[in-house]
Amino acid sequence: MSHESTLLALLKPVQPGLARMREVLGLQIADASPAVRDMTDHVSRFQGKQLRGALVLLVGEATGNSTDEHSTIAAIVEMIHLATLVHDDILDGAKVRRKVACVHSRWDNQVAVLLGDFLYARAFALSTDLSSRMCSRLLSETTRRICVGEIEQATRRYDFELSEARYEAIAGAKTATLYAAACELGARYPAGNEELGAALRAFGWELGLSFQIVDDCLDLVAEEGELGKSAGTDVADGKVTLPVLYTYRNADEGMRGRIRDIYTRPGLENRARHLREECDLQQGLDYAQARASALIESARARLARLPEGAARRSLEALTGFVLARRW
Amino acid sequence: MSHESTLLALLKPVQPGLARMREVLGLQIADASPAVRDMTDHVSRFQGKQLRGALVLLVGEATGNSTDEHSTIAAIVEMIHLATLVHDDILDGAKVRRKVACVHSRWDNQVAVLLGDFLYARAFALSTDLSSRMCSRLLSETTRRICVGEIEQATRRYDFELSEARYEAIAGAKTATLYAAACELGARYPAGNEELGAALRAFGWELGLSFQIVDDCLDLVAEEGELGKSAGTDVADGKVTLPVLYTYRNADEGMRGRIRDIYTRPGLENRARHLREECDLQQGLDYAQARASALIESARARLARLPEGAARRSLEALTGFVLARRW
Repeated sequence: MSHESTLLALLKPVQPGLARMREVLGLQIADASPAVRDMTDHVSRFQGKQLRGALVLLVGEATGNSTDEHSTIAAIVEMIHLATLVHDDILDGAKVRRKVACVHSRWDNQVAVLLGDFLYARAFALSTDLSSRMCSRLLSETTRRICVGEIEQATRRYDFELSEARYEAIAGAKTATLYAAACELGARYPAGNEELGAALRAFGWELGLSFQIVDDCLDLVAEEGELGKSAGTDVADGKVTLPVLYTYRNADEGMRGRIRDIYTRPGLENRARHLREECDLQQGLDYAQARASALIESARARLARLPEGAARRSLEALTGFVLARRW
Repeated sequence: MSHESTLLALLKPVQPGLARMREVLGLQIADASPAVRDMTDHVSRFQGKQLRGALVLLVGEATGNSTDEHSTIAAIVEMIHLATLVHDDILDGAKVRRKVACVHSRWDNQVAVLLGDFLYARAFALSTDLSSRMCSRLLSETTRRICVGEIEQATRRYDFELSEARYEAIAGAKTATLYAAACELGARYPAGNEELGAALRAFGWELGLSFQIVDDCLDLVAEEGELGKSAGTDVADGKVTLPVLYTYRNADEGMRGRIRDIYTRPGLENRARHLREECDLQQGLDYAQARASALIESARARLARLPEGAARRSLEALTGFVLARRW
């Protein structure tokens, strides 16, 4: 079975909720202003697997905590994720100068900034309409942590001495926090259930961190066009991810110099491919994959407390999907 | 008396609240992460007159509606304003290529995006801690409107056929909405007082729109360095503001062509100065100033319902300040 159909099958228990989530998303992303409506196409190209929204619903089902508001919360979580993607797409000065193509791109930096801001504002406005303030509180704090993670990451570019703990803290802040919040909201919105919420929050954190580590491996090894998004961007952007960190830490001085050179030599094209061809990354990739597996194993064990059923089986299958996915 | 000391004098009735507002702002802008703390300097260069925060406090005083939470609300309003300024500072591809200087700027586009996002998230998170949800609701909706206004403005660049109503709708959305929200929150937070809230909201809208029209005039006529921020940016960015719209509408075909040429000729430096020297803008400037005056007159009349006192006198003086200011 392909990865796509695996995902589709495991989302079955929450199909009605997902349909409502997409309906809310469509309404929220649309706007009365034609100038804003014009950008819907731009946003829709960022619509991906919607795993974060699906988690709100699956965890709600699996914990017996589903409410009428869960699909709205799922839409809010997806809008925040969309906003981060739109803002991630903004080019810095160096990239604008490097990529002549983007001179002709229809959507310029400033418009992408405003579109992301619009999505954030819309998400927060929608959350203030919910019956409980828990969603507004958790998601505004989560958004702040995502920003801090991204800022830390930006300041740690080309830092080959980054500790593994620091790497995980940054990857966790920028990715796992939203997974964790989605699962906590699923398990305990509108209130109460603190212990169950904490357990599912930990599940979401491990799942999200594992997702990010796998993402970092895929970005390093995939050829352009394979991922449905551009590959090799981490090396091009100077991000030193777990497989590279491990490789660098265990390399001799000669190899370390080569890695630094491939990251930084002016004008070098396709740095990730150079890294793959000139350095042996296998041990680093194996190490990262093992770390992702260990996180998934721990996450899966947390599900044991939930009652047997289709939603729990889907969450279990989802952990396998995150590890095995190739896109 | 200088404009600075006029402003200082009229803020006297709310000095203690302003001091608390600045304390909250300082705490909120700081962050445990050193990478984020590092940017405080960057943000502080955007700290301006803090009129929006002051309005929350002055209107609270003048309406007898001050609460312990008003200074926090003032800080939230200022953080949202700061976030919009940080994001306004992001350069589009064309500007990055034009301005060689920014190659060496320490803060790149991506970091500015994240810093603005951080400020928005922090502002919303803080608002969810208030006793009433009114502030979260009003300000997330206000932020959405600001974004829509900015997006509309971006799509109307070089549009010399823009109607005056459309110009005011855009200028209002991007500037007056936050003034309106600040005044409404001052007058009626945490709840109730709907009629008084609506009256002060209208006051804030007119004051904010007038502020923006004066801003547009100053940007057109000021020499670089006079404003404490860069001048002539509207013409450089293709923004057709009220004084130019009026001039264009009343010009013959020859003059219209000249105006369009100055806005669009490739490589032209200092477009605003060219516009001033080659086209007679006086009638347009007079017209815009008259519109700003009319708005201020209407705003001032709305204050008549408030009890006599120092705070009301300050609001009256503030309307005069907005009109007469040269920075």
